[in-house]
Amino acid sequence: MNNSPYKTSGTKTVYQNPWITVREDAIIHPDGKPGIYGVVESKDSVIVAAIDENNRVLLINNFSYVAQKWHWELPAGGTDGDDDFVTTSQRELAEETGVHAKTWHTLAITRVCDGLMTEKMAVLLATDLQQDETPSAYDSALIRDMKFARLDEVHAMIQSGEIDECQTLSALYLLERHLATNG
Amino acid sequence: MNNSPYKTSGTKTVYQNPWITVREDAIIHPDGKPGIYGVVESKDSVIVAAIDENNRVLLINNFSYVAQKWHWELPAGGTDGDDDFVTTSQRELAEETGVHAKTWHTLAITRVCDGLMTEKMAVLLATDLQQDETPSAYDSALIRDMKFARLDEVHAMIQSGEIDECQTLSALYLLERHLATNG
Repeated sequence: MNNSPYKTSGTKTVYQNPWITVREDAIIHPDGKPGIYGVVESKDSVIVAAIDENNRVLLINNFSYVAQKWHWELPAGGTDGDDDFVTTSQRELAEETGVHAKTWHTLAITRVCDGLMTEKMAVLLATDLQQDETPSAYDSALIRDMKFARLDEVHAMIQSGEIDECQTLSALYLLERHLATNG
Repeated sequence: MNNSPYKTSGTKTVYQNPWITVREDAIIHPDGKPGIYGVVESKDSVIVAAIDENNRVLLINNFSYVAQKWHWELPAGGTDGDDDFVTTSQRELAEETGVHAKTWHTLAITRVCDGLMTEKMAVLLATDLQQDETPSAYDSALIRDMKFARLDEVHAMIQSGEIDECQTLSALYLLERHLATNG
């Protein structure tokens, strides 16, 4: 049905941990040559654009283990068990920032890295915010600052490289498109 | 220097193919508990926003092996050997679309997925375009259509889900910011 130009002739799991499964497929390329394709399977995830009454978006200064650096991004995280995207978003926002939101709206379901990963990432808009609690102790160690930023401030942070990660960039773009269309 | 809240106590390679290396680090979490962190190392990559004299951007309808579906995205690919970002971009654009560009400008260096991958992705703006050659036979099998789209057409494709991949979304956001600032 999808008219795949590849054929898959086999598959095996080559690595697994609680968060990712790496599989290696045996494939036939479009030109007929045999080869392999490595695929990283991970749980679907969410990212949250939480905006206040002035359309300022909540950013966190978060530590990336992979990059070994601090950077500004949107609250995000993986789904857990059977949790749906809204439940996951509510939990991640509360754990990372202590903020609760009364209103939730799904802006889009995106794919994170289509050359390598199966992960889908839902982009959620959160409004009617309330600071209800303190972030979890674990998340506090990984998040050293948070702030609400206007879109023009976000643009300056992109320009300077302070915001440089594709999941956060994608969610900010979808937020900006939503605000342009819906005020 | 980075004030890492994690400690790394060991590392081992758990899977490798010509495109990715998966390593598993032994770590100490911020709360003092031991654990592991899986990291996917892949070559750095490029994505190309090629625009014509009317600021229409070149999209390709590309097959994703991982998602097993066709979708619209920007031309992109991994660096090869010691090739720099501009050389890689010129090669990928030509192979995938047959288009050459006289002028190249780096819009940003982004990170693809900072919870899991080391990959950096350069976002290149290509202008002064010329259709010089036909795409490579291999790429032709994986790309079934291409077109130039105005930004409002891009917005409609995002709204409909035809464009849904974070690397392409990020590059389009950076293109749109560039055009808003520089005409």
